Amino acid sequence: MKIKRIVEEALEESKQLLDKGKLADYIPELTKANPRHLGISILSKDGKKFSAGAVKESFTIQSISKVITLLFCLDFFGDEKVFSLVGREPSGTPFSEFITLSDFTDKPKNPFINSGAIALASLLASRMTFEDYLAKSNELFGQGDFKLNQAVYTSELAHSERNHSLAWELKRMKLLSADLETSLDFYTKVCAIEASAENLVDLAFCLANYGKIANKQVFKQRDIATTLSLMLTCGLYDGSGDFAAAVGIPAKSGVGGGILAVVPGRAGLVTFGPALDYNGNSIGGIELLRIISDQLDFHLFLPQAAI
Amino acid sequence: MKIKRIVEEALEESKQLLDKGKLADYIPELTKANPRHLGISILSKDGKKFSAGAVKESFTIQSISKVITLLFCLDFFGDEKVFSLVGREPSGTPFSEFITLSDFTDKPKNPFINSGAIALASLLASRMTFEDYLAKSNELFGQGDFKLNQAVYTSELAHSERNHSLAWELKRMKLLSADLETSLDFYTKVCAIEASAENLVDLAFCLANYGKIANKQVFKQRDIATTLSLMLTCGLYDGSGDFAAAVGIPAKSGVGGGILAVVPGRAGLVTFGPALDYNGNSIGGIELLRIISDQLDFHLFLPQAAI
Amino acid sequence: MKIKRIVEEALEESKQLLDKGKLADYIPELTKANPRHLGISILSKDGKKFSAGAVKESFTIQSISKVITLLFCLDFFGDEKVFSLVGREPSGTPFSEFITLSDFTDKPKNPFINSGAIALASLLASRMTFEDYLAKSNELFGQGDFKLNQAVYTSELAHSERNHSLAWELKRMKLLSADLETSLDFYTKVCAIEASAENLVDLAFCLANYGKIANKQVFKQRDIATTLSLMLTCGLYDGSGDFAAAVGIPAKSGVGGGILAVVPGRAGLVTFGPALDYNGNSIGGIELLRIISDQLDFHLFLPQAAI
Amino acid sequence: MKIKRIVEEALEESKQLLDKGKLADYIPELTKANPRHLGISILSKDGKKFSAGAVKESFTIQSISKVITLLFCLDFFGDEKVFSLVGREPSGTPFSEFITLSDFTDKPKNPFINSGAIALASLLASRMTFEDYLAKSNELFGQGDFKLNQAVYTSELAHSERNHSLAWELKRMKLLSADLETSLDFYTKVCAIEASAENLVDLAFCLANYGKIANKQVFKQRDIATTLSLMLTCGLYDGSGDFAAAVGIPAKSGVGGGILAVVPGRAGLVTFGPALDYNGNSIGGIELLRIISDQLDFHLFLPQAAI
Repeated sequence: MKIKRIVEEALEESKQLLDKGKLADYIPELTKANPRHLGISILSKDGKKFSAGAVKESFTIQSISKVITLLFCLDFFGDEKVFSLVGREPSGTPFSEFITLSDFTDKPKNPFINSGAIALASLLASRMTFEDYLAKSNELFGQGDFKLNQAVYTSELAHSERNHSLAWELKRMKLLSADLETSLDFYTKVCAIEASAENLVDLAFCLANYGKIANKQVFKQRDIATTLSLMLTCGLYDGSGDFAAAVGIPAKSGVGGGILAVVPGRAGLVTFGPALDYNGNSIGGIELLRIISDQLDFHLFLPQAAI
Repeated sequence: MKIKRIVEEALEESKQLLDKGKLADYIPELTKANPRHLGISILSKDGKKFSAGAVKESFTIQSISKVITLLFCLDFFGDEKVFSLVGREPSGTPFSEFITLSDFTDKPKNPFINSGAIALASLLASRMTFEDYLAKSNELFGQGDFKLNQAVYTSELAHSERNHSLAWELKRMKLLSADLETSLDFYTKVCAIEASAENLVDLAFCLANYGKIANKQVFKQRDIATTLSLMLTCGLYDGSGDFAAAVGIPAKSGVGGGILAVVPGRAGLVTFGPALDYNGNSIGGIELLRIISDQLDFHLFLPQAAI
Repeated sequence: MKIKRIVEEALEESKQLLDKGKLADYIPELTKANPRHLGISILSKDGKKFSAGAVKESFTIQSISKVITLLFCLDFFGDEKVFSLVGREPSGTPFSEFITLSDFTDKPKNPFINSGAIALASLLASRMTFEDYLAKSNELFGQGDFKLNQAVYTSELAHSERNHSLAWELKRMKLLSADLETSLDFYTKVCAIEASAENLVDLAFCLANYGKIANKQVFKQRDIATTLSLMLTCGLYDGSGDFAAAVGIPAKSGVGGGILAVVPGRAGLVTFGPALDYNGNSIGGIELLRIISDQLDFHLFLPQAAI
Repeated sequence: MKIKRIVEEALEESKQLLDKGKLADYIPELTKANPRHLGISILSKDGKKFSAGAVKESFTIQSISKVITLLFCLDFFGDEKVFSLVGREPSGTPFSEFITLSDFTDKPKNPFINSGAIALASLLASRMTFEDYLAKSNELFGQGDFKLNQAVYTSELAHSERNHSLAWELKRMKLLSADLETSLDFYTKVCAIEASAENLVDLAFCLANYGKIANKQVFKQRDIATTLSLMLTCGLYDGSGDFAAAVGIPAKSGVGGGILAVVPGRAGLVTFGPALDYNGNSIGGIELLRIISDQLDFHLFLPQAAI
């Protein structure tokens, strides 16, 4: 079968890059991952799923949670409220510096930098508990397989000084909707949700399917469009522009090694590979998506063939 | 006819915003424009052209020239050479500050900020004269109607201190390919090319048509894809993210009031309206594109209907 | 008497500037001050004290506490330890922006910016309670008149978001010596110590007298020299350089309206005037010190006459 | 003799640091210096001169020229005019980044950063030629020994891209008083004036003597005070604060290896040692001044004994 072969060959080729990446090491828990792991799961419009490599390995979704958080916020509060708290512009800030206070004067530049994501986590935390968030995520996309990784959560909380700085600054600017510690706890927990590539692919597919799950319009099309726009412009830290040019589809990475990618109207994809590049994105995952996009004409700005 | 009516209604509605914009005033020549002007020209896949409003008014293309310069550079020198001189990342810098030296450490962040555009103008200037550039542009897109606006050129050159600063910094970093004054003269001239919305729509269409002009593949598809990606992520200064979310198509604005917009595989559009918003983009043009995108399902991340 | 007349005339003249200043308003308590107040207390080498104007009015010492904190830190921990936590360089940061995280990469630039002062407060808090600090200050300089202003302390604590941001960033960089909340509480309390110009002049005199109090060498001469150097280069926020040029003596201001000034070997001075200039310094106090410095040849870089 | 012995011992001790420094290498000419050279020349109030080490070696004065330029500007144009073009505040910018455009919004922060010095060179260039400047400097301080080092001048001019950037930005802000190229040529030439420590010590002495040369008040006392204040707060790049605390006297360094230092009312000093520290200051010169200041009680904020 054509796609199967393309995916498997792409996987082999991408693995050759893994030695050039390195594991996230800002918390000890993340260094326990196997840097040789690489896998991809694809769910296409016709309902076919292709998987290859490390697709059953669990990893924490980290910044991929920012997509779920944004979707929930848009759904519950509307885009006017959401974009009164965060902007929609790329930040131009390299991953290696994280985000500093000086990066926002009136509000965080977008929902995918840490300060912006904390503001939106706080908004959700004013309405629901983490348990609600997890339950709802599981119900919509995770089929019960999303879990809290307690060790990563604990480790991140123990190394959350920068997030505390950001949260206090948000509080100063009256951009927190819930109590500060509650907001940070919520934020830290959603980042520590654990899933496999196979578990996450339903989320990618929901985005590719313009917000429909099993023929039901679960999210507004317009909210999906906003989310995909932000993924394309800001989804991969300071590698967003390169990825948009080379691969040409919306995506969101996490330092746990996952990448959520979307071919609107055609397919949802999730890659997993914990070895990261200079920008903090999965080095194997990006290469894999690049090759597959090339082979299957995924690039939004190239003439498209059918998957 | 459906499209005609949609466009004309959108034009009327958008005109109501014009009072909130203001003309570019950093050079005296630009303040001579009529802020009430607004027009749009559309060329769709089937070869039909729709125009409404001020589409025969000439204006200087300003930063829209950066698209032509990028295309020519990619074509003549290849993307490896081009992206050794400039990056592909959004800069996160507001228009009101222009771009400052501190915005690039190793090279300009992308080809659409002034420093990046000067680097690429210099690259072209090492190979061709401005007259060649104008002739080639006219041959490909302008049908002889592109002209140099001598008054704007002279005025911009007389107010080019910031560009000189940038050029000297580029020279320090060995990113100029031609003589500094030659590079700046070339850059200033291409910004001062004058055209109307109707004249420019062939360029927009060429991009929408994946680089084909009259069935001939004039630019490589991959170079078009790269250019459109950069337009989507960086084409409207610090309003790029908002536009990507709201309108959802690649575009490039100029302070002369033009916006070049592209619906890949479907249509090329050019709006003209010299009243600018806070970010330096045509306030009427953005609104016009937003309404038409809504009505005609142009947004890349919404399910699409046929034009 | 000559000095008396000079001081009184200077006071009258300086009062004319008060209308141009404004009260600190970042906490409500500080807006209760009387902006027309202005006074000065001078203690000269021969033990003579001259006072004029509002010298018995209590005000919170705010950033003037940073001088006491630095002296105590140098005394208890030595300069090697102290300058492993903070630098000795001017920050170049305007008062109006306060200090942001990006202002320090490895450690705060000096002990007089908020981040640096919190780091040193934390160091002291690892060794003593606020009550010890107040008692020791009273014993050395305050003659029992230094008190905690409970209302200002409470108000500042309730508006301490930025300080929390800074403290968390310090914690991240392992520059806190005590618990974070303890450190901030300590810091906030020392800023809220209340005294009058007459109460504070003994501190100024101790600095002028090279660390001697009543003929006893209480602080090391070298520590006094370090403190005075930092006062001269960084004591008045982004007005430090102007003051050094115009007045020519080490000084430290507080947003409560006090200025502590030192003529080494000759006199200690304290002015009080809560109307502040653009940089956050007492507008009347600076003018008063400028005139008196002129009249009494205080400028370090002008030929000096005896007081 | 006491001072002679102190100076010679200090010289021996300081030489041990030279291996830790490195020559300026941004222009090839400067790398030709001998990094083992170290010398000091002292001229004290009673007219006695002490010299030890490499005091007859010529070096280019580089940024030490900024002191002469400031004095001439204050003298010819008055401080109101001068400080309308540059500020008086420390910049907080490390030497290693030089100065970038973003460091000034309305004007350069002080006359000793490159942008500020170019603004003042331009002011002088509007009134006098470089030959006049050299002649006047020689007449006042250099006794005919100040010369233009043609090789360094040519080399600096060939590497003056950053200075061109700064000059164009100054032009944009209307802070140039003469033609841009004339201003830069003037600036580059005054930096390339060559002298020995022995030649320069008269300049240091004139500052120590409050502007008097041979009993004639050549510069206004107030202008000298302003100059010394700026030397103390901004004279040694990002090492200014450390030097003020440790050595306690006004000084100005140059990347050619010279340091001009002043003990007001007591002595002028010049050290030469081309091996530079991290901040771009002579590593041996700073150590030498530190030891001598300690031994001879030069620190402004320590009780002083007679030289």
